[in-house]
This record gives sequence, structure tokens and C-alpha cells, in this order.
Amino acid sequence: MQEGPSASQDSLASRWPRYEAAVLGFRHYWYPVLESRKLGRRPRTITVLGEKIVLVRDNGKVRALQDRCPHRGVPLSAGRREFPGFLTCRYHGWTYDIATGELVAALTDGPDSPICGLADVRVKTYPVEERVGLIWVYIGDEPHPAVEADIPEELLMPDAVVIPLVELRKGDWRYAMENAVDESHARYLHRKTPFAFFRKFPAYQTNVRMMPSEDGKWLRRLSKPVFDSAEYPRVGQWPKKEGFWRKAGGQVIVGGARLPGIFSVGHKNWLDFQIFVPVDADHQLTVQVSMRRTRGLGALIWRLRYWTYIRFFHHVILQRWEDGFIVGAIDAPPEYLFRPDVSIVGWRKWCDEKARRSPAEVAGTQPKAKPADALTGAK
Amino acid sequence: MQEGPSASQDSLASRWPRYEAAVLGFRHYWYPVLESRKLGRRPRTITVLGEKIVLVRDNGKVRALQDRCPHRGVPLSAGRREFPGFLTCRYHGWTYDIATGELVAALTDGPDSPICGLADVRVKTYPVEERVGLIWVYIGDEPHPAVEADIPEELLMPDAVVIPLVELRKGDWRYAMENAVDESHARYLHRKTPFAFFRKFPAYQTNVRMMPSEDGKWLRRLSKPVFDSAEYPRVGQWPKKEGFWRKAGGQVIVGGARLPGIFSVGHKNWLDFQIFVPVDADHQLTVQVSMRRTRGLGALIWRLRYWTYIRFFHHVILQRWEDGFIVGAIDAPPEYLFRPDVSIVGWRKWCDEKARRSPAEVAGTQPKAKPADALTGAK
Amino acid sequence: MQEGPSASQDSLASRWPRYEAAVLGFRHYWYPVLESRKLGRRPRTITVLGEKIVLVRDNGKVRALQDRCPHRGVPLSAGRREFPGFLTCRYHGWTYDIATGELVAALTDGPDSPICGLADVRVKTYPVEERVGLIWVYIGDEPHPAVEADIPEELLMPDAVVIPLVELRKGDWRYAMENAVDESHARYLHRKTPFAFFRKFPAYQTNVRMMPSEDGKWLRRLSKPVFDSAEYPRVGQWPKKEGFWRKAGGQVIVGGARLPGIFSVGHKNWLDFQIFVPVDADHQLTVQVSMRRTRGLGALIWRLRYWTYIRFFHHVILQRWEDGFIVGAIDAPPEYLFRPDVSIVGWRKWCDEKARRSPAEVAGTQPKAKPADALTGAK
Repeated sequence: MQEGPSASQDSLASRWPRYEAAVLGFRHYWYPVLESRKLGRRPRTITVLGEKIVLVRDNGKVRALQDRCPHRGVPLSAGRREFPGFLTCRYHGWTYDIATGELVAALTDGPDSPICGLADVRVKTYPVEERVGLIWVYIGDEPHPAVEADIPEELLMPDAVVIPLVELRKGDWRYAMENAVDESHARYLHRKTPFAFFRKFPAYQTNVRMMPSEDGKWLRRLSKPVFDSAEYPRVGQWPKKEGFWRKAGGQVIVGGARLPGIFSVGHKNWLDFQIFVPVDADHQLTVQVSMRRTRGLGALIWRLRYWTYIRFFHHVILQRWEDGFIVGAIDAPPEYLFRPDVSIVGWRKWCDEKARRSPAEVAGTQPKAKPADALTGAK
Repeated sequence: MQEGPSASQDSLASRWPRYEAAVLGFRHYWYPVLESRKLGRRPRTITVLGEKIVLVRDNGKVRALQDRCPHRGVPLSAGRREFPGFLTCRYHGWTYDIATGELVAALTDGPDSPICGLADVRVKTYPVEERVGLIWVYIGDEPHPAVEADIPEELLMPDAVVIPLVELRKGDWRYAMENAVDESHARYLHRKTPFAFFRKFPAYQTNVRMMPSEDGKWLRRLSKPVFDSAEYPRVGQWPKKEGFWRKAGGQVIVGGARLPGIFSVGHKNWLDFQIFVPVDADHQLTVQVSMRRTRGLGALIWRLRYWTYIRFFHHVILQRWEDGFIVGAIDAPPEYLFRPDVSIVGWRKWCDEKARRSPAEVAGTQPKAKPADALTGAK
Repeated sequence: MQEGPSASQDSLASRWPRYEAAVLGFRHYWYPVLESRKLGRRPRTITVLGEKIVLVRDNGKVRALQDRCPHRGVPLSAGRREFPGFLTCRYHGWTYDIATGELVAALTDGPDSPICGLADVRVKTYPVEERVGLIWVYIGDEPHPAVEADIPEELLMPDAVVIPLVELRKGDWRYAMENAVDESHARYLHRKTPFAFFRKFPAYQTNVRMMPSEDGKWLRRLSKPVFDSAEYPRVGQWPKKEGFWRKAGGQVIVGGARLPGIFSVGHKNWLDFQIFVPVDADHQLTVQVSMRRTRGLGALIWRLRYWTYIRFFHHVILQRWEDGFIVGAIDAPPEYLFRPDVSIVGWRKWCDEKARRSPAEVAGTQPKAKPADALTGAK
């Protein structure tokens, strides 16, 4: 049941101070930052939540350190692997234990260099893990949770065949995530996208609401799609008559949002996850993870499907060109929300309330959580 | 009669606070922004006086709206013409009446979307007209004058054959307009421009003064040209002997300035108008309008003359390369004016006093205008 | 004898306020700004210590003026040489005496222009000289010393064959100079540079100290090189076994620093000077001057050596690609200095104490200089 306009506008105008402050995202989470296969022997530098990090693969294991030598501030990503297990700064040969960030030698000061004994000269390290073809880095205070706590379960299933894609894109990470959470834009922006060529598209939806999952991890988006063309006051019928080939479909895409910035979409027999990783105030990594549960020949066919059309039609045209253009073009605030934005409002409130706090805050005086249904637009 | 140096420097150092504040120009005027022929079915975006505007041609008539959907700030210039007479935002299908800016439908929220009823969700519209091959937009408070009030009369004559050219250029609009108002730079900067190849150039001028026209719309520049070479102390004769082919000319180019930033130059049998439209603090549209009163075969010959040499020699070389380079290179204040700058000073004072005020200001306490001759350098 | 770690860290943490403030370098010095051969008839513009300067060659003699016409701020470097000995602004023909900066004519205001009589309308001039193939400009207060006071004596010897090279580079001039002063980075950053292919490289050095020269002009760097490979705790032997061809060498490169930003390196039979000239906060001119004392055929052979390998291997690969990359990548403060940085600290303190003060300051209350040995790291 839809709300009346005034109530709706009131509820749409609530405030979410933690969310508003999260220009660089929420700390104390694991974030995917690079495809595993892209990290070879050469160190790679990335920026996540405003922090410059160098990734190093050492004896198979990935390590992450702050990308800055404390001596004069030269990037360690320009450094060399002089000794196994150690990264050596290009400038003066300051040599760090890749696993701990400890300064173990300053080559150009001889083997007795007193700088090595100083406890405060070390490079910050980050917890880092590889899962499902991606490198995940924990940004936040210790102690950190297991990386599995921040990876959707489906991706970790033994028969999951996962294909990841990481892209740097323009735009605030929150616009990108809200664009994913928002179902209504698809009815218009993506109406003629090649990926949905054979699919019947709803014209609009009613009764949009967000509902927490039983395990409390996901905030699922529910709505009732309307497929028929309708008569709009003043402008007339919409959608106009569409191609006869649009027969498939009719089912609604169920989507779910999850902290710190994950959105999942269930397709007929595969799942698509989008993970938005804040880089700086104007950029985010868009991590797209496509997954199907299958094995053997099925896995081969799935990969074939992915590379022949899913990647280009879905990830490039629909998500890079269509969504990506919009996310980079949004110029807000101010904003003026409408009824379907109940989903965005629900997500913002959810973040405001549920985003992890630092272990220190939790040990102190964390405010008690409000009931979950207060988060949704449907009362 | 020329003033002595000290008096001149005093008068050159007057103040003009409204003019100094007019970084983004003077409001409450009509400005030309685009050649009519360049606006087809596709919306076009422009920035004028700091405001982002989308131009739409609807059923032949041009309309201008703020280029921003109030929902999430996506540019309406990326939108579609879903229904005749309406512009639909690319993101969620918010549909606006092109003529009024009223939100008439939010397609993806169904035909009963309550957002459409809200009076404060509308897109600002701008008065817009087409005249003499240009699209004119009114920037300022209502009520607005007729567009004809801001177009030089000559351009509107029934036998006027008008050819417009709009270019985005670097530089403060005031430097560009002052460059047009200033006659003296032509004696040096343009001395060898191909456009004046056969023309005798004055060496300098005396008795520069600005004189309001009878109808009070124009501030005309008057001066007495000196064609002969003179002996300058310490450096010698100037101009040096010039080509024998410089025979034509001898007449002075009469120029006139008009608010908000129009300069007219009378050539032998055609007129050239330059209109400088502020874009942002560092850019302006230079609108060049060439016009001759003629008909039939005369019109054809005039267009031929324009395209064969006037455009390239006059508008490209002289005005884009020579003047345009200077306007983009000016680094002022500070400045140190000299005797011929009496024309610039006259223009600045004229703006300070005559630039339109908002209708509200006028209804209130507009200060009484001072006598016009106080504006000129000749006392 | 090396200091213990704590003493070292203390001494490394001293302060040098004048040096820290010298983002745009030290005034009251002569700086090289351009190769002589690069200034022909056309004026050239350069920026030094934040000041925009136009260089003009007039009748063989180089002159330097502020690159800005006082009238409207147009660059004089766009001007013309209308009359011998004078530079004329492109815009209105304001004509300046190239030697004195005096305004002698305003062509477009006629021979009687009163602006020429005004004492305060003149363009600032800079003392400028040509020596050793370079144009030197004095930036600072008058009276200025002779240019020879700021040029290393070796370059001025009658049998000096000098080859200069001026490049604009990214990075704070102090990072560039400190990189030159610092010997230790060479042991690692330049270890495999082609220029040192046949040379044995020290692994590190002990007993780094800075020692003023007898004439008080230079701060020389002294240290004891260690050539043998050593066993470093935790990481093992370094340097690893190197090519049998590394036979030459064994000698230490003696270097010396001199205000305002000169570093000299003595090679076997030639000298290399690097002079770092501040441009703005993020750029410097790197002036490289190679010199050998020889004559006749010797000079020819020296030039041949320079052009066949010294320029590319030494100035391009080693200094532009290797050092230049680092200087542009340094991101400090904060910094964390180590034992070899005693040389940098010595240089900073030397600057703080010895950098020239304006003649006015000197005439007033210049603080008494501290004893020179307080400047070095060795106590």
C-alpha cells in the first residue's frame, strides 16, 4: 500500500548523519581491491578509503602495506624485491619485512644501522586475503573479523564459479550504491539496453519496501511490478507499444543491499554482485562479481556465456555506459526524493544504524539498535 | 583638447563598484547564446552568467530550462523527448512540460505518483526568443522586457541580412568588451592584420571621448585620428614607412558600446556587432554578428563576401587570433591606464550607473541618474 | 666514528626555520636560467623564484625585465622589437628601454603622451650576465654582488671547457638539492645505472660529515666508503656478487654543496655541477654544467666524450630518469632521517645560518654567525 504524498515526503526527508559523513566509506570492513590474477611479482598500488596501499605477492601470499617509505615519503610500490620476503625502497634501500612492515635493514647505512632498532619506524600493514579471485583488504581498527564475514555466502560455496571484474570509476561511492539499490531507474534508463532485449520490462512498481534478511546481513528490496502500459495524465500512454519479441521475463529481479556497499541481483540461474569501494571523494572501484553454481562442463558453458555476452551487454553497456554515466553526472545535494526512493532511504538509515563501529566504540557506549522495521518505507 | 597628465590620471582612477562586482555580468538582460541553426531536435546545454541551461526546440519553438533535474541533479540535457512538448529525465523518467518546467509525470512511479502534485518540484524556465539567427535568453528577474529592447535596431530592420557566429573564448567578459571599446590598441595590435591590408591606418588619435546617443542606448566613441607619421622622443619615427598599397581608408571607424556588453563597428557598407556574454569568471561567449542592408542578388553577394574573406580575415585572424590572444593573456588588476583609456573609463562608469537593476530595486529606492556628460572623459 | 642511535635521532631532529620557509629559494643570489645559445632575437619568458621574467638579447647584450606590461598586464614576451634597444608591448605599443625598463613611448597615444613622464610607470629590470654559456639573473635586493661571486671558480678558469644543460623538472628545489647532497642513495638507486657499469660501487659509507671549505664557500661532504659486501641481519649478504667487469673505481666521489643550491661532483678528469633553481613550489630548473680543463684537440675530445655518452648516461638516465623520478615522487614531511642524512642536516643548518640576507638586514641587526663545526653531524 502506497503512502500519501505528504507522509512520503516527510519520511523521505529523515536524516542519516553517519551516512552523510561517510564520504570515504565505512571503516572496519574488508574490501575487494584487485583481481587476484592481476597481481604478479611486481608490486601494485591502489587507493582505498583514501589510503594509499601497495600490494605485494610474496611466495604466493598477498601482503598489503602503506605505500610510503617513512624515510622521505617515496612510494614503496616503486621498490624492489631485493631479498625473499622483503620489500626494499628504491631510494636508499630501506628494507621492510613484507609480512609485518618492520624495518629490518637500511642497506646504504651498513649492517649496523641504528635506525633498524627503532620501534616507531615501520610501515603500516593491512590484513589481506584472497578469495573468489579477488584480493580483499581490511580497512579499520583491530581486531578484524574473518574475511568470510564480509563476503556473500553464495560466492564461497564449493561449486561457485566466480568471475570478477574491477574498474575505477568516477563518482561518489554512495551514488553508485544508491543507483544499485534503486529499482525504479531501471524501468527507464535501462529500458532499451541490449541485455534486456528479449525481456518484458515492468513499467513501474508499487509497494516498494526494504526488509532485513533473517540473518540480519542483507536489506532486501521488495516491490510489486506493474507490467501493463498505463495512461499518464497530460502525457498519455506509457510505455508505448514495445517489440513483440519481448516475451521472456515477467519475473522481478530480487535485489539485496549489504554493508559496506554490496548489492546482489539474482538472475535466472546466476547471481551478480556489485561491490562499491570508496577511493576518494570522487571515485570508487566498481567490483562486479558474476557467479553460477555449477561444475565441469557446466562451468565451461557458464564461462562461455559470460565472455560471449554477459560481460559486454551487462557489465559494459548496462553498468559502465548507462549506470556509470549517471553516477558520474549526479550533482546532489540538493535532492528531491520520490516514492520509489523509499529503498534508498531505507539503505541510508540501515547504514546509519548498522555500519560497524570500531571495536573501541563497541566496547564503550554503543547505542542500542532500533527495531529493524523502522528502517523500511512500509509502515 | 587633451587633458594634462595629472588630471587624466586622476580621472582614470575613479571607482565603479557595480562594474567591479560584475564578474558574471549584469542580470536583467537578454543574451544571445547559440546560433539558431545549431539547435535541432537534440537538447543543447550552455552556461551563461554562471547558470547551466538546456535549450530545447519544441515544435519549432525554442525553450530554455535549468539543466538539472531536481530529483538527483542529473542534467536534463541528457534527457529524451518521450512525449511531444515534454522533456523526460534520462534517469527515472521525470517528465517536464518544456514550456513551463512543471513536473507532469514521474514515469517510473506510475500514473498516480504523488510527486507530480507538489508545487515546489519544477524546473526553472527562462524566457527565450529567436531573432536574427540567434537564440536569446533572458537572465534576470521578472517582469522581463521584450527581447527587441536588447537587440540593436539595425539588426531588426526588414532588409537586414544578418550572419551570426558564436564562440566560447577564454578571458573575463569585461576584458573582451573593454578591448572592443578601446580604439587605440588597433593602431598597434592590428596594424598588420590582413583585413586592413589595403587600408591606411591612423598612427594614433586625440581627443578621445564617449558620448551618449540621443536615445540613450549607446555610448559612442569619438576621437580625432592622426594619420601622419610622427617623431617620437628617443625612439624616432613611427609608424615607419608603410606599403604604397595602403591607399583606401582615412575614415575613422565609429564604434559604440551598449549594455549589457554589445559593441558595434560601422564598416563602409556593413555593420559588425560583437556581443560578449559572460559564462564564468574566466570564459565568455564572443558573439559576432555581421549585417548588411540589402536584398535579393545583393544578399547573395553579401554572403559571398562574408564567406570568402570577412569571416576568416576579420573574425578569425583579427578577432580570434589577435584580440582573443590578448583577452586571454590580460593579467589585471593592477592596471595603469593612459589617455586613450578614457573610453574604457567612460564605459565602466556608464555600466556602473546605467546597468539595469532588478524590477524590485527599481520599484524601491533606485538612486537618481547623474547627468550623462559626467560619464565621458571630455570635460 | 658513528654516533649511537638516540644521539643521532636527536641531532637529526633539529630545526632550520629559514630553510623551511625557503619554498621559493633564497633571494639575493645570481641564478642561471637559460643556455646562452637559446636566446636569439625572440624574447623568452622564464619563471624564477616565483617571478615571471622576460629575457631579451639586445645588440648582443642580454637584458631581463619583469614579464608584464604595467598598463593591462599583458606579457612583454609577446612584444616586438620595434626600435633598436626597446621592447614594445604587443597590445598598445607601450615601448620600454630594454636596459632600464623605462617607459619611453606609448605609440598609440602619440608622441606627446603624458604617461611617459610618470616616474612610477616602469618595468622592473633584473641584473643579468652571461658566463660559461649560461644566462645568470640576480634575484634580490640591491646592491648586488658581482656575478662571479656566485659562480664556482673552476668554471671561470681560462682553460675551462664548459657544457651546460637546463631542464624544467617537477619537485621542490630542496628535495632536488638534498638528493644531490645525499651520497647514500647512490649506493642503491644508482647501483645499476649504465653510467657506472664498469665501476665498483661502495655498499655504504661510514663517518659521514660535512666540512666547510677554507674559503667558507663550500660545505664539503666527507665519508669513508665500504666496498665489501656485508652480512645484514635477517636479510643476508648485500651487495650480492656483482659483475667481474666492475673493476675501475674504488675512489670516492667528493661532493660539495654551496648556496644558493649548487652541488659539485668531481669525476676523474672532469667536474659536474648541478644547480637547482626554484621556479615555483613544485618545480625547479635543474641546471647541469659539465666542465673539463683542456684546450685545442683536448677540448674537441672532451666535447665528443660528452655528447657520445656522458650526456645520455649521466644527465639523462642517472639524473633525469633516476634522480628526477625520486625528486618528483617525494611526499614529505613527515620524514624520518637516518645516519647518512647527517649530510642533509648539515646542509639545512648551513643554509639556515649562511644564506645571504638582504643588504638592509645586514646593515641592521644580523645575528652573529655560529662556529662552522656546529653545522656538521660529526661532533
